[in-house]
Parts: sequence; C-alpha cells; structure tokens
Amino acid sequence: MNNNSAASTGMVSLVGAGPGDAELLTLKAHRLIQQADVVVYDRLVSDEILALIPNGVARIAVGKIPGHHCVPQDQINDILVNLAHSGRHVVRLKGGDPYMFGRGGEEVLTLGRQGIPFEVVPGITAASGCSAYSGIPLTHRGLSRRVQFITGYFSDDDMLVYDWHRLADPDSTLVFYMALANLGDICHRLITAGLSPSTPAAAIENGTTGSQRRVVSTVLQLADEISAQGIQAPAMIIIGKVVSLSEQLDWFQCQLEEQDTAFADTYEKIVVNNA
Amino acid sequence: MNNNSAASTGMVSLVGAGPGDAELLTLKAHRLIQQADVVVYDRLVSDEILALIPNGVARIAVGKIPGHHCVPQDQINDILVNLAHSGRHVVRLKGGDPYMFGRGGEEVLTLGRQGIPFEVVPGITAASGCSAYSGIPLTHRGLSRRVQFITGYFSDDDMLVYDWHRLADPDSTLVFYMALANLGDICHRLITAGLSPSTPAAAIENGTTGSQRRVVSTVLQLADEISAQGIQAPAMIIIGKVVSLSEQLDWFQCQLEEQDTAFADTYEKIVVNNA
Repeated sequence: MNNNSAASTGMVSLVGAGPGDAELLTLKAHRLIQQADVVVYDRLVSDEILALIPNGVARIAVGKIPGHHCVPQDQINDILVNLAHSGRHVVRLKGGDPYMFGRGGEEVLTLGRQGIPFEVVPGITAASGCSAYSGIPLTHRGLSRRVQFITGYFSDDDMLVYDWHRLADPDSTLVFYMALANLGDICHRLITAGLSPSTPAAAIENGTTGSQRRVVSTVLQLADEISAQGIQAPAMIIIGKVVSLSEQLDWFQCQLEEQDTAFADTYEKIVVNNA
Repeated sequence: MNNNSAASTGMVSLVGAGPGDAELLTLKAHRLIQQADVVVYDRLVSDEILALIPNGVARIAVGKIPGHHCVPQDQINDILVNLAHSGRHVVRLKGGDPYMFGRGGEEVLTLGRQGIPFEVVPGITAASGCSAYSGIPLTHRGLSRRVQFITGYFSDDDMLVYDWHRLADPDSTLVFYMALANLGDICHRLITAGLSPSTPAAAIENGTTGSQRRVVSTVLQLADEISAQGIQAPAMIIIGKVVSLSEQLDWFQCQLEEQDTAFADTYEKIVVNNA
C-alpha cells in the first residue's frame, strides 16, 4: 500500500471464513484468498474452502487437530508477524467471524504494535449460518427482540460467579458457542434462574454443510437428547421461543433430501456408500 | 426443483445483502442475484449492490424512502407470493442478515404456508460489519465474553417495562440496532440500571462504506456527541469495554485516508468535489 518505507513489509488480512458452506464466503474473502502469498488457517476452516486456495500459495495450519496440540496463540502471533516482516501478504483465515469468539482482536493488536498493516474482513458468524440453515430466526416479532451470544466454554469458577438471571430471559434468544461440554450444567442453571424448562432449544451440528444435523428439544431435555443422538462439536446451541419455528422453516433439510433423491434417481438406485 | 406438480411454481431466495460494502456479499448471494428472474429489495441495500443485478432482471423496491410510505409487510408478502406463483425465481434481498431484526421469518412463514419453496441465505449482520470496519471486536479476552444484540426501536411503554438491569452488564458488549431516535433515553436507563457512565460507547454511521463515520465517546456523552457531529441513520451503537480498542484497531479509516491521498497525488491535487 505504501511505496516508501513500508515497501519491504507485507500485510495481514484477518478474514472470516464463515460457518462452513464455502458459498458463504464473502466476495472479499474469496478475492483475498486468490491474492494471498500465504494462508494461515484454523481447524474450523472447511476442506471445501481450503480447496479455493490457488496452487502454489503456501498454507500453514495452526488449529487444534484432535489428539494433537494446537499452536499456542503467542506462537500464531509470531508466525503472522514474521511472515509479514518478510514482505508477504498473509491471509489469516478463521472460521466464522474473527471478532466473535475468534480471538481476532488479540492477533491484530499484536500486528498493530509491530507496525504491520492489517485489515479485518467480517465473516458470517456461526450463529447466523446455523439460524438460516436450521429454520430458526434469531429475532421474530412477538417471540424475541434481543439476541445474546455467549461462550459456553467456562472454567468451574466462571460458572459459579456468572449472573444467570441476566441470561434467563424468556423474551430473548440465547445462542451458545462451544457449549457442548457444559451443556447439562448450562441448561440446569438457566432453569434454576427462572427460564421455563419447556423453553424450546436446539443444537445444530456441522451447520450449513452437507452433514448438518439438527436436534430440537426443550431446555430441560436438550442435553440428554444430544447425548442420545451423538451430536458432536462443532455445534451451536439456540434457546428461545424462536426455536418453535424450526419445523415450518426447515428448507435446508428438504434441499438435502431432494438432492439425495435426485442423486439416487440419476444413478438408478445404485447404493452409494458415503461413509 | 420439483419436476411434477410444482413445475409452474417458482421459488423465493431470501438473501442477506450484508452491511453495505458490496464485497461483503456472500458468493451465494452473488450467484443467486445473477440467476434471479426478479429482485425485490429494501431501502438498506446499497446502489453498489443493486449495480450487480444483471440488465433485464426486474427490480422491485419495497423499502421506505424518506418522505414516502414504505410498502407494508403484508403487501411485501403478497408480492413475493404472486411472483413465485407466476413461476419466477425471486431473490428477496434484505440489508444485513434476514434473521437478525430483518423480519425475514415473517416473509418465509407466509411462503411456506402457501406451499412456495424457499431458501434463506445469511448475510453479514450490520454489527459484524461495523465491528470489523471500526476496530471494535465484539468479544475480547478479559473485556467481553457475551454480546447482546438489541433493537433500539421502542414504543414508550416498551421502554418502561424493559428489564434494563439485564442489559447493564459491564462484562458484555451491547449492540443496538436502529437506536438513534431513542439513544439519549437508552443510555440514561443503562446508567440508572448500574452501568458506569464512563463505559466506552461508539456510533458507526454508514458502516463498511466509503462514507463510514465513527464517533467514540462514553455512554454518558454519546448522545450529545452524536448530535454535535450530525450522525444520521443508518448507524450502529456499540457499548462496552471493547470500544476502548477502537483507536488501535482502526485500519479502515487509514485505508480510506490513504486512498484519498493516493487519489489526490494521482490527480496532482486537483480538487474533486464529491458532494
């Protein structure tokens, strides 16, 4: 961008990759991926999106892979700084939106302190993606006029000091990120704080992708239902009256099933194992 | 999609157009706009985005234009139903995300009841766009672990019955949509409910566009500051400790200024009136 002293310094584009479906990338994210010298990406960035990176562009994975350690945040920051200092245009690709539970702020603060130019490109946050693809509007006239996004990742002490009364509002939509491990405890505390046990509640696994699964239940029974159905991370939790619309608005499951049917018809009922 | 009875029925794609910058459209939104027979759009969809609609595709504006009445929601629903029944593929384009204060749920419920196939494509909600482009992460370690999205559009009675204590949480980020008209009252009630008057607060006007303006202040002084600077709708309000990062993370204003400088240099300081 600068032609003078900064000629030898690269820059970092911190880019949200959205919730999973590669078509939910923004035009800007897509353009930057095409122009990058190197892409540094997280575990939650899908293979479909990684396939958009041109051949010859370096890729560095820094996300946690089950059974392996993830790269610590300090080390990710160092990687970005070193790549930019060597003159490269770095695309730092994160699942969802980098400023919504993505620790993106920490990364660009480090860059700013080192004098490295950066820009931030928002992505569709997982809550919006799961909302649209699971038939659960986050707001709806008469059902919800407030949406709360909360991390479900707590240490034990956090849970004790948290003011659950503030959350337990029947006229709001509650969206929990990364809540599977603590879900039973979270739902119990919400009910204790006054939320009706019959409040509709849903979990969406692998939201917006071809392997999306949705469980619709109540805040009382969701945790058991999820265990019974073997729902795994990544999954979003949505709690509130808006969940009651999910059956009527479930267009995505219908599309998936139609695709399956069309596929089966075309191939004359040949059984395709897609395990 | 169906080859049998529904052959003469079209479908509706309810599509989020994002916060303003046309490059923040998703790839899917862009593809659907190219494939549409007709685009039905709101006031908040930018000219830059409307310019992406191919020639020959019909356009229907249903948003409120200052000084004119907007098309009532019932009538918008009727327009969508009639267009789909005539066999057209309708793209219903809404600013931001259709399921976040966009009344998108009401439109697709109507379609579903009429047996019209539909799909919903999430968009970057204005909060995410303004967050990224104004240097204000919605979450940040040690500053905020919860984000609340609230409509700032109240009738008087609503304001009286609202539980402001639930909102006045110093460890959360508060994002108000459509709050300019009631901002003085909102800030007053938050302070009365216990939020420190010195809590950082910001307004972002025309977020993510070339005419973005940002005002950073405190919850006590924001309303006065906004009046003084003549901030107008559309504007987002963000309140919370994360606003304190905005100076360090303000990459977008720098890019705009660099573009201005580059432009001025190229044209040898010819004064360009861009009123």
